[in-house]
Amino acid sequence: MLIVKKFGGTSVETPEKIRDVAVRCAEDYRHGEDVVVVVSAMGSTTDDLIALAHSVQENPSKREMDMLLATGEQISAALLAMALDAQGIRAVSLNAFQTMVHTTNSYGNARVQKIDTERIMHEVEDRRIVIVTGFQGVNRYGDLTTLGRGGSDATAVALAAALNADSCEIYTDVDGIYTADPAICADARLIREISYDEMLDLASLGKTVLHNRAVEMAKKYGVTLVVRSALNRHEGTIVREVTDVERMLISGVALDRSADRISVIGLQDEPGVAFRLFNMFAKAGINIDLIIQAVGHDGLKDITFTVSDHEMEAAMDLLSRNQKRLKYKSVSTDRDVAKLSIVGAGMMSNSGVAARFFEALYNEGININMITTSEIRITVLVADEDGEHAVRAVHDAFQLGKE
Amino acid sequence: MLIVKKFGGTSVETPEKIRDVAVRCAEDYRHGEDVVVVVSAMGSTTDDLIALAHSVQENPSKREMDMLLATGEQISAALLAMALDAQGIRAVSLNAFQTMVHTTNSYGNARVQKIDTERIMHEVEDRRIVIVTGFQGVNRYGDLTTLGRGGSDATAVALAAALNADSCEIYTDVDGIYTADPAICADARLIREISYDEMLDLASLGKTVLHNRAVEMAKKYGVTLVVRSALNRHEGTIVREVTDVERMLISGVALDRSADRISVIGLQDEPGVAFRLFNMFAKAGINIDLIIQAVGHDGLKDITFTVSDHEMEAAMDLLSRNQKRLKYKSVSTDRDVAKLSIVGAGMMSNSGVAARFFEALYNEGININMITTSEIRITVLVADEDGEHAVRAVHDAFQLGKE
Repeated sequence: MLIVKKFGGTSVETPEKIRDVAVRCAEDYRHGEDVVVVVSAMGSTTDDLIALAHSVQENPSKREMDMLLATGEQISAALLAMALDAQGIRAVSLNAFQTMVHTTNSYGNARVQKIDTERIMHEVEDRRIVIVTGFQGVNRYGDLTTLGRGGSDATAVALAAALNADSCEIYTDVDGIYTADPAICADARLIREISYDEMLDLASLGKTVLHNRAVEMAKKYGVTLVVRSALNRHEGTIVREVTDVERMLISGVALDRSADRISVIGLQDEPGVAFRLFNMFAKAGINIDLIIQAVGHDGLKDITFTVSDHEMEAAMDLLSRNQKRLKYKSVSTDRDVAKLSIVGAGMMSNSGVAARFFEALYNEGININMITTSEIRITVLVADEDGEHAVRAVHDAFQLGKE
Repeated sequence: MLIVKKFGGTSVETPEKIRDVAVRCAEDYRHGEDVVVVVSAMGSTTDDLIALAHSVQENPSKREMDMLLATGEQISAALLAMALDAQGIRAVSLNAFQTMVHTTNSYGNARVQKIDTERIMHEVEDRRIVIVTGFQGVNRYGDLTTLGRGGSDATAVALAAALNADSCEIYTDVDGIYTADPAICADARLIREISYDEMLDLASLGKTVLHNRAVEMAKKYGVTLVVRSALNRHEGTIVREVTDVERMLISGVALDRSADRISVIGLQDEPGVAFRLFNMFAKAGINIDLIIQAVGHDGLKDITFTVSDHEMEAAMDLLSRNQKRLKYKSVSTDRDVAKLSIVGAGMMSNSGVAARFFEALYNEGININMITTSEIRITVLVADEDGEHAVRAVHDAFQLGKE
C-alpha cells in the first residue's frame, strides 16, 4: 500500500511535534507500507515570513513573496527527514524543484497541473519515506509558486493522484468529520464515511478541516481521503464515492456564523442586472454565497445574498460607489444571521426531508429568513442567536446522535 | 559594466540593513551598470537553523542539513528583491535550482563546478538586478548542497567568473585590507591594491575578511576582487594580478594569536615518520600550520608545528593515544605563542627583507621561537605578549604607515 499523509502547520509547529509525526509515519512504514508525507510550514512560520516581507516592502511582489514563503515547508520537510532518521528510518525531503510540481503561473494562488513522479517513486522503491514540501510548485518560467489557502491539502491530493496512492490521509487537530459541531451538540457522532459532494457542502459551510479544492481534486481523480487526528489513533472519516443506497439520509448539520446578509432593493427588472451586480463583486475578489431573487413586481426586483463578515465592508463600499450604475433604490443588511444547513446524499431519493427540517425549526419557534437548496443540501438563514439551538433541534429531528 | 556584489550575513541581518543594501545596489544600477548580487543568510539565521536541527536530531544527516540551511539565503534573497522593488528597481531573486549552480556531491562542503548563466543573463539583459542565493548549489543527484565556510564568497567569485563580470565586490564590515590591524597599529594604512598571492597569505594569517578558497578561485579565473565596506563609500582594496614592478616591498604585517605550538620530541629518524604523524591529523580533520623539522641527531629527531587553539585538545588527545605507534619520547606545548608574518610579492626580488624583519624584532628585544618562509612571506613565532608590540615595530621598520 502506498499512503500519502499530510500534516498541517499545527502538527509540525515544534521539534517535539515533528518527532511525534515521525513516530506516526514510522509505524506505517514498519508495517510495510510505502509512505509519502506532505508537510506545511511550522506553526506561524508563514505568518512570520509575511510580516518580515512587509517590514521590507509595504506591497511585496507576489513572485518574491512565493520565493520567501516556500522556505517554510522546506524547513519542516528537512526537519521531519531528520526526525525520521533519528527513528532509524531512511527518509528524504524533496522541495518543489525536486518533485517537479508543475503549476499554473499565478503567484500566490497557483494550481497544480502535473507532478513528475520519477524521483519520488525512485526513493519510495528504495524504501525511503519521502517528505514533500506542501503548498508550493514551479511554474513554466522555472519560478516558485505557492498554492494559496488549503495549498498543502491540494499538494497531498495531487500527489496521491499522480502516485496512484491507496489513500491520502489528512491529519488535523480533530478526529474527523462530525454530524454537527461537538461544541454545540454534545451527542454529535463522528461520520465514518462520507461522499465527496457531501464533504464539499459541509466544508463550504464552515467545517474547514478540509479545503474544497482538495476535495474537488480528490473527487475528480478518485482519491480516497481520510480525515483524522494527528493526536490519537482514531480511524477518522473516509471521504470517497459512496454507492451504498441504504446510507444515512442526512450526514450532518452545519452552522456558519460568519455570514452577513445584504439585500439590494429596487433593482430594475431587466436582463443583465444580476450579471452586473455579481460581476462587480467577482472582479473585486469578494465571495458571494447564497443568492435569492424573488419574482419582481412593478418593474422592480430585490436580490438578497450573503457575504463573509470580513468582506461585508468592502461589499457595502462597492455597492454605494456603484449605486448610479446599478440603479437600485436602497440596501438593507443584517449582520446577525447564521447559515444552517443539512447535508446528505440520501435526501436526493427521499421526499419529506425539507419538511422535517422546517418542522424541527418551527417546533422551536425559530424563524427562517431565507431558504436555498441544492440536490444534497438545504440551507436556511436564521438569526445568529438561534443558531446553536437550531443545530441541536435539527440534529435530534434526524436522529444523528450517538445511539 | 557587469558587477557582482556579495553581501554577507551581517550586512543583511535586519530589514533596515536589507533596505540599505538595496539603496547601494540601486546606485550602481542607476549609473547604468548591470548588477548581480549574491547574499548570505540574515545574521544568525544559519546558526538558528542548525540549533533547530539539533533539537530534532542529535546528529542530523548532512543532506537534510543542507536542505534546511539553504532556506536562509532564499529568505534574504527574496527580501532584497522586495527592497529593490520598493526603490522602483526591477529585481528578481534566484535560488540554486534556478541559477543551476552545479557542485560536487559532498553535502556541507561542496565545491562549485559550473554555473548555467542563461537565466541570469536573460534577467540582466532585461535590466533586472539579479539576486542569487549564496552558499548553495545543486549536485548531480538534483539535491541541494552547501559550500561550507566562505561559501557565499565562493558563489560570488564563481558567478563573476561564469558571467565574465568586470569585478566582484565583497562587502564586509571593514574598509578593506590594511597594512596591519588598525586596532594594533594606529597608523595602519588601507592597501589600495594587492596580488592574489599576498591576499592568500594575509587571509591565512588571520585577516579573514576574504576566504582563501574565494581568492584561489579568483586567481584561477582572473576575477578582479574588491574588498570594501558595506557601511561607507570608501573604495576598498582591489585584489588582482599585480604587475607593477615598482610596488611596495611589503604589503602588510599580520598577527595570528590563535596559534598553539606542539613539539613532538624524540621521533625515530627514519622515512615515513612525518607522513604517519601528519596523516593522522589530516584524517582527524585537524589543520596543521607551520611545520619545522630540524636536522636529527643520535637517530632521533623533533618535529614542531602549530595548530589553532580550538583544535589543540583534539590534537593532544590524538598524539597521546598514538604514542606507541608513532614511537616518540615526549610532547611539549606552548599555548602562549602568536604567529607574526610579513607578506609582500616585492620581497621575491629584494634581498635584505628578512634581515630587516629580524633586526626590527631584535631591536625591541623580542625573541623568535620558530621561523618559516615562503616566496612572498616570512613568518615567525613569538610570545603572545610580544605580538602587538612586534607588529608595530615591524610596521615602522618597513615604513608601512601613513605618510
